[in-house]
Amino acid sequence: MTKKSPKKVVLAYSGGLDTSVILKWLQTTYGCEVVTFTADLGQGEELEPARKKAELLGIKPENIFIEDLREEFVRDFVFPMFRANALYEGQYLLGTSIARPLISKKQIDIARKTGADAVAHGATGKGNDQVRFELAYYAMEPDITIIAPWREWDLTSRTKLLEFAEAHQIPIAKDKRGEAPFSVDANLLHSSSEGKVLEDPNDAAPELVYQRTIAPEDAPDKATEITIDFEKGDPVAIDGARLSPATLLAKLNELGKANGIGRLDLVENRFVGMKSRGIYETPGGTILHKAHRGIESITLDREALHLKESLMPKYAELVYYGFWFAPEREMLQALIDKSQELVTGQVRVKLYKGNVEVTGRTSPYSLYDKELVTFEEGAVAYDHRDAEGFIKLNALRLRTLAARKKKTGL
Amino acid sequence: MTKKSPKKVVLAYSGGLDTSVILKWLQTTYGCEVVTFTADLGQGEELEPARKKAELLGIKPENIFIEDLREEFVRDFVFPMFRANALYEGQYLLGTSIARPLISKKQIDIARKTGADAVAHGATGKGNDQVRFELAYYAMEPDITIIAPWREWDLTSRTKLLEFAEAHQIPIAKDKRGEAPFSVDANLLHSSSEGKVLEDPNDAAPELVYQRTIAPEDAPDKATEITIDFEKGDPVAIDGARLSPATLLAKLNELGKANGIGRLDLVENRFVGMKSRGIYETPGGTILHKAHRGIESITLDREALHLKESLMPKYAELVYYGFWFAPEREMLQALIDKSQELVTGQVRVKLYKGNVEVTGRTSPYSLYDKELVTFEEGAVAYDHRDAEGFIKLNALRLRTLAARKKKTGL
Amino acid sequence: MTKKSPKKVVLAYSGGLDTSVILKWLQTTYGCEVVTFTADLGQGEELEPARKKAELLGIKPENIFIEDLREEFVRDFVFPMFRANALYEGQYLLGTSIARPLISKKQIDIARKTGADAVAHGATGKGNDQVRFELAYYAMEPDITIIAPWREWDLTSRTKLLEFAEAHQIPIAKDKRGEAPFSVDANLLHSSSEGKVLEDPNDAAPELVYQRTIAPEDAPDKATEITIDFEKGDPVAIDGARLSPATLLAKLNELGKANGIGRLDLVENRFVGMKSRGIYETPGGTILHKAHRGIESITLDREALHLKESLMPKYAELVYYGFWFAPEREMLQALIDKSQELVTGQVRVKLYKGNVEVTGRTSPYSLYDKELVTFEEGAVAYDHRDAEGFIKLNALRLRTLAARKKKTGL
Amino acid sequence: MTKKSPKKVVLAYSGGLDTSVILKWLQTTYGCEVVTFTADLGQGEELEPARKKAELLGIKPENIFIEDLREEFVRDFVFPMFRANALYEGQYLLGTSIARPLISKKQIDIARKTGADAVAHGATGKGNDQVRFELAYYAMEPDITIIAPWREWDLTSRTKLLEFAEAHQIPIAKDKRGEAPFSVDANLLHSSSEGKVLEDPNDAAPELVYQRTIAPEDAPDKATEITIDFEKGDPVAIDGARLSPATLLAKLNELGKANGIGRLDLVENRFVGMKSRGIYETPGGTILHKAHRGIESITLDREALHLKESLMPKYAELVYYGFWFAPEREMLQALIDKSQELVTGQVRVKLYKGNVEVTGRTSPYSLYDKELVTFEEGAVAYDHRDAEGFIKLNALRLRTLAARKKKTGL
Repeated sequence: MTKKSPKKVVLAYSGGLDTSVILKWLQTTYGCEVVTFTADLGQGEELEPARKKAELLGIKPENIFIEDLREEFVRDFVFPMFRANALYEGQYLLGTSIARPLISKKQIDIARKTGADAVAHGATGKGNDQVRFELAYYAMEPDITIIAPWREWDLTSRTKLLEFAEAHQIPIAKDKRGEAPFSVDANLLHSSSEGKVLEDPNDAAPELVYQRTIAPEDAPDKATEITIDFEKGDPVAIDGARLSPATLLAKLNELGKANGIGRLDLVENRFVGMKSRGIYETPGGTILHKAHRGIESITLDREALHLKESLMPKYAELVYYGFWFAPEREMLQALIDKSQELVTGQVRVKLYKGNVEVTGRTSPYSLYDKELVTFEEGAVAYDHRDAEGFIKLNALRLRTLAARKKKTGL
Repeated sequence: MTKKSPKKVVLAYSGGLDTSVILKWLQTTYGCEVVTFTADLGQGEELEPARKKAELLGIKPENIFIEDLREEFVRDFVFPMFRANALYEGQYLLGTSIARPLISKKQIDIARKTGADAVAHGATGKGNDQVRFELAYYAMEPDITIIAPWREWDLTSRTKLLEFAEAHQIPIAKDKRGEAPFSVDANLLHSSSEGKVLEDPNDAAPELVYQRTIAPEDAPDKATEITIDFEKGDPVAIDGARLSPATLLAKLNELGKANGIGRLDLVENRFVGMKSRGIYETPGGTILHKAHRGIESITLDREALHLKESLMPKYAELVYYGFWFAPEREMLQALIDKSQELVTGQVRVKLYKGNVEVTGRTSPYSLYDKELVTFEEGAVAYDHRDAEGFIKLNALRLRTLAARKKKTGL
Repeated sequence: MTKKSPKKVVLAYSGGLDTSVILKWLQTTYGCEVVTFTADLGQGEELEPARKKAELLGIKPENIFIEDLREEFVRDFVFPMFRANALYEGQYLLGTSIARPLISKKQIDIARKTGADAVAHGATGKGNDQVRFELAYYAMEPDITIIAPWREWDLTSRTKLLEFAEAHQIPIAKDKRGEAPFSVDANLLHSSSEGKVLEDPNDAAPELVYQRTIAPEDAPDKATEITIDFEKGDPVAIDGARLSPATLLAKLNELGKANGIGRLDLVENRFVGMKSRGIYETPGGTILHKAHRGIESITLDREALHLKESLMPKYAELVYYGFWFAPEREMLQALIDKSQELVTGQVRVKLYKGNVEVTGRTSPYSLYDKELVTFEEGAVAYDHRDAEGFIKLNALRLRTLAARKKKTGL
Repeated sequence: MTKKSPKKVVLAYSGGLDTSVILKWLQTTYGCEVVTFTADLGQGEELEPARKKAELLGIKPENIFIEDLREEFVRDFVFPMFRANALYEGQYLLGTSIARPLISKKQIDIARKTGADAVAHGATGKGNDQVRFELAYYAMEPDITIIAPWREWDLTSRTKLLEFAEAHQIPIAKDKRGEAPFSVDANLLHSSSEGKVLEDPNDAAPELVYQRTIAPEDAPDKATEITIDFEKGDPVAIDGARLSPATLLAKLNELGKANGIGRLDLVENRFVGMKSRGIYETPGGTILHKAHRGIESITLDREALHLKESLMPKYAELVYYGFWFAPEREMLQALIDKSQELVTGQVRVKLYKGNVEVTGRTSPYSLYDKELVTFEEGAVAYDHRDAEGFIKLNALRLRTLAARKKKTGL
């Protein structure tokens, strides 16, 4: 049926119905050995049930891999991306996009360890995730065989999927019988929801969609103020308490959730070519994004900042499209990281009913100089009269253009 | 004392103490005729007192120009800029920057009409505004003489200024005797505050600074929902009622103010080289910015949007630096306006205690296609299997790189 | 065998062996009516033999379309692209890329006229041209059926192709019996050669590859000097004689050929993901490119030029990838065309054994001002002392950085 | 007369008439101690005469600094810049610009060593060099006093300068009596000529202007072929012989000169606002530029190359404007250097009467894969059929746009 004939496949396995069906489909379609990989990226689900389920479906214990990736995820993927202030299409904090490369990387690691010749994922054929997974697989292992069941099988409706599950004794949770009113992806950085009830971009998202944040309306009537310490562009402490990357992000998530922060209702453009509508919740990330801009505002030179800003859309696009393990992303990261060497200091942030406001920033490396900016003259470095020369030479080309216009009328 | 010896100067005159001192200083220093120009850009002050004051200071009636520029300001400056989604340093909506070129343009128009050979403004020698005024003057009239009193005179302290005012019978309002705790600029788009109590970027801005918005905490507990109609990238109606540009922006300002929307506490980088801290309030502009992104999200093609986004920082920098009347800004505007031809439709926006959230968008030119994005296959335009080829060719260069790495170890 | 079942196909038909085989294959495979379209883009072949051959292969006279597109090609495709100074990967003048969209556009026009539901081209499955043809087809007619025989059929070797030709009474020119030592594409702008003897990028290209230029070694020992007049960025006259676009380019080709100008030996990156090596000859285009830069150098403002330059790589990439009929190309064109309004004047160019050197430029719209640049002071617009202020404010941020370094040691 | 009252000044001293006048003028105007710094950057003049002359003008031996900077210049300035393929305004190889930061750096080093509080240079008030020198001074020593005699003194004509020289017993070489017909700057990378006979951009440059190259017409009738080896983006050997950076560049200069390579007649835009016309000769640099592109063409990934290309104009602008020691240049350098890690291999270059042509390239890290590009199918990594999916998804957004157009007529 297909030219692929994998012997051993490493499957990104959540333990849920869909990836369980995939597991069984791989076994029955290819007659291959399946290795499951289940990762904790902070999606908020326990992992041990996935082990049990895998065993139940006949996976050998030595073929079941379960790993807590939360610290690695935040330290090596989320934080580098936040150094860039990355926003896709000006708004989206890239919560789903940034998780895929790490999962892919681990699948390839496991494939090498177990001698597997193939990998498989549960992403659909119309989304961005298939691209992100597969670009990362190929970037690490150029000749790996990739199985993308959603693009290959004929289980093209919910009914067929459930029939296959029943036929293969895959347990079906009661609430999975009916169709979910929307689909969800989640990790420590965010949750996203899309599809079904969200498909008309002119219908407001129902409140039940939101899982990571309470509504601003339900948040406390009193603002919460916190400080975040940064070192070289990364957050290291909240209210003076030093925290590991994942712990810190989890703490920010709590704070964001409680204050109704980080909701986004967006129509975005997928890499595969169509528009889609998503509801994103990035409580901690939203706080972090603003706070990072705050610390940069006093520690980054103007042109360093402007250069970063001008490249940010490209960086965000690369992450969104799935080019994390690509030389152009690494080149941009080198540029960005170079700029962050002294992005160190403290930001004070006010959280209130959906709002994040930077109210103070301080740094031993601050470039803000009260002397320079103060109304009264005096600072040695700045002579009012310099401004005239500055303006006149900046204007010279404009004056030449104006003179041409006077002369030629054009 | 200076090589300039203007005969007739067109002064940007607010009627306030500072520009009244400048008026008198011009007369006494240069012995020149002064023409005053007072514009209504929606700063919220009446203009007739400025006429009276100018007369009192000896300006001939035919030398007093007063003009309501609100519609021109919004239609020809604010709206074109909002088509670009311009944010300086990722955050600032450029409310002060965008007003300067229009004032300059009008001063030059009046200089031509009245045969004046010079123009003057009241911007200080450390700020951006002097640059914005003067670049615009020069771009229109290359040989104009420019007087920037704050860079020239010796009234370098508040005390000296007041002494000069008293010596020349300039009336001093009681509240101008003491130093203002911060300085303010305002127009229909925004108000900005800086200096004095705001100079330490680690001190939160006191509530008294805010003039255009109530605090989110004081805003209604119930959200307000409105619709905004757009045509070719510009807003034309609120809740179905067609409004002129200035009226529409004023209406959005009301709505924004009432819901605590549009506050920004920012440390930014000036064109003249130092960092400064400002408090900006852009209630209507903040709503408009989000709504414009909303209508673009369904009507703009992906690559059109990404191209715009990648050039936005440059566009915003040009506006902030004062290069409005420069070919590079006009070239970017041509690119942006080209993209807006079908940015037409309606956006629904929810306003609540500082938050602006797009909850719906619809357009006769929508590119959003439910068929394409829906989970179940069927759409003719999209075949799941196409994704494999798409990914494989996108991955080809990454696979080649990976193969090199395998071969060379580098 | 395939889901496509076209009734009537418009084929881009050269009259050569390959497209004749395609013609017959379309008839036999799909049983469909074939419409042939043969265009003169200056490739240097007569068109009437293509008509005869099409008739011979059973195409009805009303289904044979032959058109001289040279003027349209140069005026609406080549010249707009040269306004951008487009060079792919810093070197390639895009001669093949720019011809494809026009051919596609005409095929779609003919499909509409003849009621055809499909189009077909003879580009292979590994190259850029298939992408360029098909993106353009889809951009004009979203539901058109596209037949790309080289990706579909099983004539995967030269032998099979010849067998098919013989089996179907397709005449085979004697010199087509053997394999060509490389493959060629040509039009009025350039010719390109690739494949076979050129496949090792470390082997110098043999002289026989070159078709449009004589070797610099064989060119006259005396330089030729010409003038080119430009209007709004486009060339309009050579040595004072006004010429139509295609005639002008043909004349430049003659001059370039005779002087050994316009050869390029390049390894480039294809859109489909691999590197390839090509030999390009663009005699007239190389002269035009340099001359256009020459006239821009005195008529374009600095920032207009720098903005154009910064976007040129993107523009060139779009043309190379096949996104001519895409909004982002049109947006860039709007920006570029805006800049060309006064790019009018005359350039003098010296041609000598492969070299093109601009030796003079003059324009009624020149921004070059001898007064400003002359060593001795005097010009009113420029005061030496302005430079100090200009430098000091440009240096202010660097001094602040240096002061930080002194203070913190970092 | 001026607020500056330097005690000890480090002067960039060539030993020529102009800087000798400056030396004396500094002594007589400020009564300060003068330290001379004379550097060998390969300008082709001996340095010992400068020492003698300085002594003659009363400089104490311990205040005379002479240094051979050629290796440092090429290794740390020229080569990093060539990694970027930097061309200002698409054409200029930045030979003058790149030398200034190094001279400035050394002057500051000597100022620190000798306890000097000021530096001085001999650049005029209308050029770019004053900016380049001074930005670099300030970037290293924020409170340094800078003396720019050409902007300060009243020796505003050649006559006055000669009178001053005579009045102060400064020896005047015979050929310096009259005005030079143009002014020259030279170093190991290039020589530039401008002014006087070159001021009309419509007059061809006379042959006597050229100093570093023979005319292409005078070059040998037979081509010279060489190989250049690269490691990590830098050239390390010619024809297999390993050479130090300065020696290698000198060797390329010889080869370039002999073959009439590297002439450029350019009207460019200065940072200070006006256009100027220059004749540049960069014989070795022109070869190096082409060769570097050649080795990149097989070792750099497409997106790495395109990203570099898109940032090159910015990088070149920064170097031209004098922002070498600025964070934005360092950030770009980090990005560029990251890309060069495997830019290693050999390029074969043909030199012939002004032409430089890459005729071969090879590398252990080559990404060129004959298998992938070859006409006949077979390569595992590439399936012709993948192209269809690739094109269809790339076309999806264009089809959606086309469908909109069909539906709305817009």
